[in-house]
Amino acid sequence: MDRLESNPGVESEKINLYEQVAERMAHLITEGTFRPGERISSVRGLSRQLGVSLSTVMAAYGLLENLGLIEARPQSGYYVRARLKSPSVPMKREIPSHAAVPKTLSVSDICVMLLGSLSNRDLVPLGGALPSPELLPVDRLTRTLSAVTRRFKNQSVSYDVLPGCKTLRTQIARRAMTAGCLLTPDHIVTTHGCFEAVNLSLRVVCNPGDTVAIESPIFYGFLQMIQTLGLQAIEIPSHPTEGISIPALGYAIEHHKISACLVISNFSNPLGSCMSDESKKALVELLSAQDIPLIEDDIYGDICFQHDRPIVAKAFDKKGLVLLCSSFSKTVAPGYRVGWIAAGRFQEQIERLKVLSNGATATPNQLAVAEFLATGGYDHHLRRIRRVYANQTAAMARAVEDHFPKGTSVTRPTGGFVLWVECPNYVNALKLYEMSLEAGISIAPGPVFSIKGKYQNCLRLNAGFWSPRIENAVAIVGKLAAAMKP
Amino acid sequence: MDRLESNPGVESEKINLYEQVAERMAHLITEGTFRPGERISSVRGLSRQLGVSLSTVMAAYGLLENLGLIEARPQSGYYVRARLKSPSVPMKREIPSHAAVPKTLSVSDICVMLLGSLSNRDLVPLGGALPSPELLPVDRLTRTLSAVTRRFKNQSVSYDVLPGCKTLRTQIARRAMTAGCLLTPDHIVTTHGCFEAVNLSLRVVCNPGDTVAIESPIFYGFLQMIQTLGLQAIEIPSHPTEGISIPALGYAIEHHKISACLVISNFSNPLGSCMSDESKKALVELLSAQDIPLIEDDIYGDICFQHDRPIVAKAFDKKGLVLLCSSFSKTVAPGYRVGWIAAGRFQEQIERLKVLSNGATATPNQLAVAEFLATGGYDHHLRRIRRVYANQTAAMARAVEDHFPKGTSVTRPTGGFVLWVECPNYVNALKLYEMSLEAGISIAPGPVFSIKGKYQNCLRLNAGFWSPRIENAVAIVGKLAAAMKP
Repeated sequence: MDRLESNPGVESEKINLYEQVAERMAHLITEGTFRPGERISSVRGLSRQLGVSLSTVMAAYGLLENLGLIEARPQSGYYVRARLKSPSVPMKREIPSHAAVPKTLSVSDICVMLLGSLSNRDLVPLGGALPSPELLPVDRLTRTLSAVTRRFKNQSVSYDVLPGCKTLRTQIARRAMTAGCLLTPDHIVTTHGCFEAVNLSLRVVCNPGDTVAIESPIFYGFLQMIQTLGLQAIEIPSHPTEGISIPALGYAIEHHKISACLVISNFSNPLGSCMSDESKKALVELLSAQDIPLIEDDIYGDICFQHDRPIVAKAFDKKGLVLLCSSFSKTVAPGYRVGWIAAGRFQEQIERLKVLSNGATATPNQLAVAEFLATGGYDHHLRRIRRVYANQTAAMARAVEDHFPKGTSVTRPTGGFVLWVECPNYVNALKLYEMSLEAGISIAPGPVFSIKGKYQNCLRLNAGFWSPRIENAVAIVGKLAAAMKP
Repeated sequence: MDRLESNPGVESEKINLYEQVAERMAHLITEGTFRPGERISSVRGLSRQLGVSLSTVMAAYGLLENLGLIEARPQSGYYVRARLKSPSVPMKREIPSHAAVPKTLSVSDICVMLLGSLSNRDLVPLGGALPSPELLPVDRLTRTLSAVTRRFKNQSVSYDVLPGCKTLRTQIARRAMTAGCLLTPDHIVTTHGCFEAVNLSLRVVCNPGDTVAIESPIFYGFLQMIQTLGLQAIEIPSHPTEGISIPALGYAIEHHKISACLVISNFSNPLGSCMSDESKKALVELLSAQDIPLIEDDIYGDICFQHDRPIVAKAFDKKGLVLLCSSFSKTVAPGYRVGWIAAGRFQEQIERLKVLSNGATATPNQLAVAEFLATGGYDHHLRRIRRVYANQTAAMARAVEDHFPKGTSVTRPTGGFVLWVECPNYVNALKLYEMSLEAGISIAPGPVFSIKGKYQNCLRLNAGFWSPRIENAVAIVGKLAAAMKP
């Protein structure tokens, strides 16, 4: 009976063991471990699994039959009753998040909700920085995945080793030239997405308690990550077109002990700013002079609206102090979790921390992306999505101008697919987030992009999707904002 | 010129800019960024990428042509010369590791080499705990992956969200009943392998400086992980058939502040021990009395040689203190990186740390494993591999008895596929590791399984593979061991 009592669930005051067994099985059925029409454990099996007698299980199953939860089928076993379509207890995870908004939300709660709502189809997706599946090379990539896993059968199921799949690293090194970087495959380590690359970078160059200089506003995921790693952040103001302020960073370096600097150099999230070549050079020189590592996120760099993509700050790295992080999550396949890092002098430490975190990156995913890059589909695909995202961000910016209250300003990025909206001071973005959620629309409120709760009247909108439904949602959020005018 | 000088490589004393450009391009060619027969950047492209003039690039390409490294093809561009088959500088990563053994190796070096040689086909694989691809359901899984990514096209490329793919969690919850656990899908979080599950567990239940009680000997990857996380380990003796000593653990708890306990409860790596139900119950009760979390690795639990798989310690968990970690890396596909954790009261913290480490687990991988579990292939597959691994471990144990020096003992595990070999005291396992490597054979020397360098005369052998070549390798290692007799 020890094992039976041991599983979490409703506290039981029942005396009979068989009733307890029945209660546990009923819980599994209502919570989705077994679904209507499916066979549950045999009497013998459950007896063995729970360490109770056959007669106890038979009594429990008899009770469940009487309650209409299961049915016996001759010579086949016990099944969940098929007409049991809506379980009396709703499943926790199935509650749409807009129905579950508590009255007061912390910034941290909202970040978790934003990260958790990425695939929630019930919400209009203005919140996450999400590409529309229609702008991902789904058919081509799916065929490529099938082809490479057939071709490299044994390899595709086997452990890969650090620094990761050689053919993928070769493709990445080659493409890095378009960003002004002369890298060989050996300079690159593959990761489970750009987010992991940044996480490993912070853990390698900082110790708990250290301070990281970050551009502000910055992607809320990085702020949460910094906090979780026990690091301090110092916010350096960033300009909507120029990016991080070099003089302000210089001032911070003079007055604080800074262990690393983290920027999204090209089409930053959320501002959409793109640092000029001169700014990048100045940034690297300023940090290098003090031997401060730069963690550079270039995840949006390939989605530029002009013909040539911008270079990266790493192109100016003379001391191996720049850890360049990127991935294919915004351009090819978010769900494949294929990213990479060129970590300069920190490469060996990155490899070690990566292998001790989760081993090498998943094999078939790497093989598929490598093949997709090698067979030339990527450049064609980029040309298409650059045009589409340029149009979508412009259209959404116009919609903001049309529907948001007077005094609102919106960015006009030259790449990526997020917009930063600054509303009049009377707009409370956290309230606007909750009201939008109630209207079935997800937005990213300004304060989540700051450790100090700045940007109270700002929000980030995702232009990864565009349709009349999206345009209507922008109009609704605009009206909700306007209605806040005192 | 700043950017050109900025990339790591051979120090240059050349005066001419074009010579520096040529040198850098030559480096990329010899290091594999561009391979023989492939087109390199256009003159215009390289000029823009490096921020140098067109004439500089043309002069550089002229020099590379004269050196025989590249060739111009009319109206097409510049290509790496196809006859350039063996680059004069060998590529760093291509050196087989058995040719690169330094004279004295630290235990930590050896661990990194072991983790790095998992896919090295030049070595006879007695080192890693690796399943043979022939014992993985490669064809079935490859077809399943193709089918699910075609069926769930948009979903398969999109971000998943925590706690992970619902269909996979449902299958895992259902199968957990065979291990004596009544879990619902909501109790489970998917991860990039069991290794990530253990890593997240340690980070959630411990702070740097804390002490973890571990069974000894234990998988070297966990020891390296514990060290990297800034934790202390205290080694609790483990018995070759019974597993961790409960009285010794009780003594340690009385005399030290223990923050967590980590065990591989079923068919432990390296001993192959399987704790009895009574031991598991006693372990959970001992730890629960002090509110100490138990991190339980069950990665080998499904590979039992008897008909019914053993239950897990989590089956006795009354307080939600057991974090049960497992994966499909030993049974289905190491390279897919699909694992999971049932973390009890720590679930929310695990989800948060996971999403801030690398987001949700890769989507197509989860979909494929879920479908493979759901369509019934897994049980059939398990029946087959249980029989084969039982035979292979028995055959390898016999080979050890035949070929190792007198006084050697070897385990007879009832599941999994590793053997623990204890040689006479005169055998130095670290030396044996180096000598075996020189003979093209990878083994795992005893001292890597201990923080204190114990088990000097022991080694772990992988019985995941079996063939005359493997048997011969066991004989060679045995002879090398025998030759150490003074």
